[in-house]
Amino acid sequence: MKLNDMVLVSVDDHVVEPPDLFQRHLPDKYKDLAPHVIRRDDGSDVWQFMELQIPNVGLNAVAGRPVDEYGMDPTQYEEMREGCFNVEKRVLDMSANGLLGSLCFPSLPGFAGRLFGNLEDKQAAQVLTQAYNDWHIDEWCGTFPGRFIPLAIPGIWDPEFTASEIHRVAKKGCHAVTFPENPVPLGLPSLHTDHWDPVWKACSDEGTVVCMHIGSSSQLAVTSADAPFDVTIVLQPMNIVQCAADLTYSPIWKKFPDVRIALSEGGIGWIPYFLERLDHSYRTHKAWTHADFGSQTASEFFMDHVILCFITDPVGLKLLRDHIGVDKVTVEIDYPHSDANWPRGPEKLMGEFEGASLTDDEINAVTHLNAMREFHYDPFSVIPREKCTVGALRADAIGVDTEPRSMSKRDKVEHEGPFTIKDVTVTA
Amino acid sequence: MKLNDMVLVSVDDHVVEPPDLFQRHLPDKYKDLAPHVIRRDDGSDVWQFMELQIPNVGLNAVAGRPVDEYGMDPTQYEEMREGCFNVEKRVLDMSANGLLGSLCFPSLPGFAGRLFGNLEDKQAAQVLTQAYNDWHIDEWCGTFPGRFIPLAIPGIWDPEFTASEIHRVAKKGCHAVTFPENPVPLGLPSLHTDHWDPVWKACSDEGTVVCMHIGSSSQLAVTSADAPFDVTIVLQPMNIVQCAADLTYSPIWKKFPDVRIALSEGGIGWIPYFLERLDHSYRTHKAWTHADFGSQTASEFFMDHVILCFITDPVGLKLLRDHIGVDKVTVEIDYPHSDANWPRGPEKLMGEFEGASLTDDEINAVTHLNAMREFHYDPFSVIPREKCTVGALRADAIGVDTEPRSMSKRDKVEHEGPFTIKDVTVTA
Repeated sequence: MKLNDMVLVSVDDHVVEPPDLFQRHLPDKYKDLAPHVIRRDDGSDVWQFMELQIPNVGLNAVAGRPVDEYGMDPTQYEEMREGCFNVEKRVLDMSANGLLGSLCFPSLPGFAGRLFGNLEDKQAAQVLTQAYNDWHIDEWCGTFPGRFIPLAIPGIWDPEFTASEIHRVAKKGCHAVTFPENPVPLGLPSLHTDHWDPVWKACSDEGTVVCMHIGSSSQLAVTSADAPFDVTIVLQPMNIVQCAADLTYSPIWKKFPDVRIALSEGGIGWIPYFLERLDHSYRTHKAWTHADFGSQTASEFFMDHVILCFITDPVGLKLLRDHIGVDKVTVEIDYPHSDANWPRGPEKLMGEFEGASLTDDEINAVTHLNAMREFHYDPFSVIPREKCTVGALRADAIGVDTEPRSMSKRDKVEHEGPFTIKDVTVTA
Repeated sequence: MKLNDMVLVSVDDHVVEPPDLFQRHLPDKYKDLAPHVIRRDDGSDVWQFMELQIPNVGLNAVAGRPVDEYGMDPTQYEEMREGCFNVEKRVLDMSANGLLGSLCFPSLPGFAGRLFGNLEDKQAAQVLTQAYNDWHIDEWCGTFPGRFIPLAIPGIWDPEFTASEIHRVAKKGCHAVTFPENPVPLGLPSLHTDHWDPVWKACSDEGTVVCMHIGSSSQLAVTSADAPFDVTIVLQPMNIVQCAADLTYSPIWKKFPDVRIALSEGGIGWIPYFLERLDHSYRTHKAWTHADFGSQTASEFFMDHVILCFITDPVGLKLLRDHIGVDKVTVEIDYPHSDANWPRGPEKLMGEFEGASLTDDEINAVTHLNAMREFHYDPFSVIPREKCTVGALRADAIGVDTEPRSMSKRDKVEHEGPFTIKDVTVTA
């Protein structure tokens, strides 16, 4: 496999919503209610919604900036690369990275889409949720057919509404929905209850993938208030193992075996160890805990229902064939976040594939075929396959400047001592 | 390497303290204060201490029992295999498992030894701590020279006392001390403070290994109150990654580079993924978090100071040579806990070593040479090496009955529905 012949589909990128998001998708009577962008005295742009101000922290929009401009400070639109919020520019940035398709997570409403639930008027909350989804599906994704996998947000405060929204957007071709990896920290019933059954049933009926992104429970991995923030950065992606164990022992997959759940930004290098731990625990303790996976092992049951996703994972890829399985793994770029594999994603990925001695079939499965199958995504029906390769897309994007550029518009405030959780504002 | 030629040293087993623990190691004036065993109406034996009753839950003493007798119910001494609490029988059980040396964690005072700190009279708390350590070192370990690696408990409420105790027991040849993997859930200052510096300095001066056992912060991995307890069982050992990240970014190893910390029962299969995550985060974020590991990578810094320990870890062993390093890994048996590799430890380990294609030198490093070096343990000065092998020890233990035997003395109460955290009592 030559680098230029790869076809890349990313199941985890992020959109920074543009200020005009709600202009074309909301009935007039709700327009005053909708979030709108204001510039604060400190020069940062925030979304004003009810009494809330929602900033876009720097780390969430650093693509194209030098690493010494990374940080947790709120930012303004002019300090972001335009591809963060402008879909024309986004597609150019995708092409410059050789990326054919992209699934984009929300920023403003939170990964779990919970923002609009703050409204007491739940009818209005539903209308805003639907407007958001319409903007995302029809405008962000719809402008460039074949280049995006649409992803709806739920109305997390109402499982029945969420189910109806899953059905509604499925008719528009959207077969993915975000969901918190643990609803409990959000004050909602756990994955072990039947509260969410309408959601799982709708996903099962529509073939809709549930995307549980790291951090979507809004619970950060914090060991102590005075721990350097690096500790949280290291741990946050590893925290998803809690969700993986929860899902395995939840009733979801027993009641709705067709539901597929993606562990977005979950990585894969920890999976083989987790699978061994699952099976060891099941063998050792099922006699008294009465856990029951029928004729399967616990790890088989888990792997049958999950979709795994990674950005960079050399060790995981080495364990792919013998310990994880080739059919469950998909790639992520994570543009424009700080972990993004951009603009040299193809080079990085190919290096890891070669390090793991993957075959061409294995590379094709991981780079696009698995994602296309699991997310009902068929770009080749819109764009000829020969125009979908890394080489072809990059040829279309010649002239896109991908060099890191300082984009700071304001003086940086130097921080004293190590950053801790107390020094950062995070919205998930 | 033939199975019978292996030499096995376990750096993680557990002692169930015998009822006469305090009889020979406590001044008379404190004897009434000491914990003592009473039998409750339900037939279980508990330690009575002040107003507290501390049970020994079944899972902590299941060696030799069939798996359908595993569970979280409190137990009585007659329901345990004698090797749990009787050192003569323990050594026979070790030999029957081909095990030369064993480091035994406490049960009664908690992994972090915090029980005695409940006393308002801190002088008494110190005396009880010292009595416990004297019993452990002189009696439990001292009865069979060369067969145990002694392990002291700290006086976790007082770093200065703990430091003095580390010095005191070092004079008796004890070069290991337990410590919580995170003091914060115990209401104590974090690993990021200088509160514990006297402890680290004493360990540095004496070459004393700090053993941080999973669960020693008394914080269980609970995703929600209604999650099946299986979730916690699966996650508990994986939780140690939080401690690993904390340690890497704590000031401990920068101030006291000679301190070695063992991640007891921490496993190794997750380490390569964690190391990649450490290095990725450091590269990406150090410019703004100001993390600084000098000329090292974050993973090199971590690996230089840690001792890794595993019970069963096929994937981890496959990654040993290229991704973890042979010199930092030690084996554990975990007798008499439910995860124990007993009585077929040598067979299980050899199977995993063969599966990972380890060389004889690598097997020797992992099975005993690393533990001997790191814990200053020199059994061959007491027992000729040829008597220390799996084959020689098992020959000495012919006649020890290792078949699982029902030991229930009481009717089992059948549990309705899945076990959750609400149904179990756990003391760490």
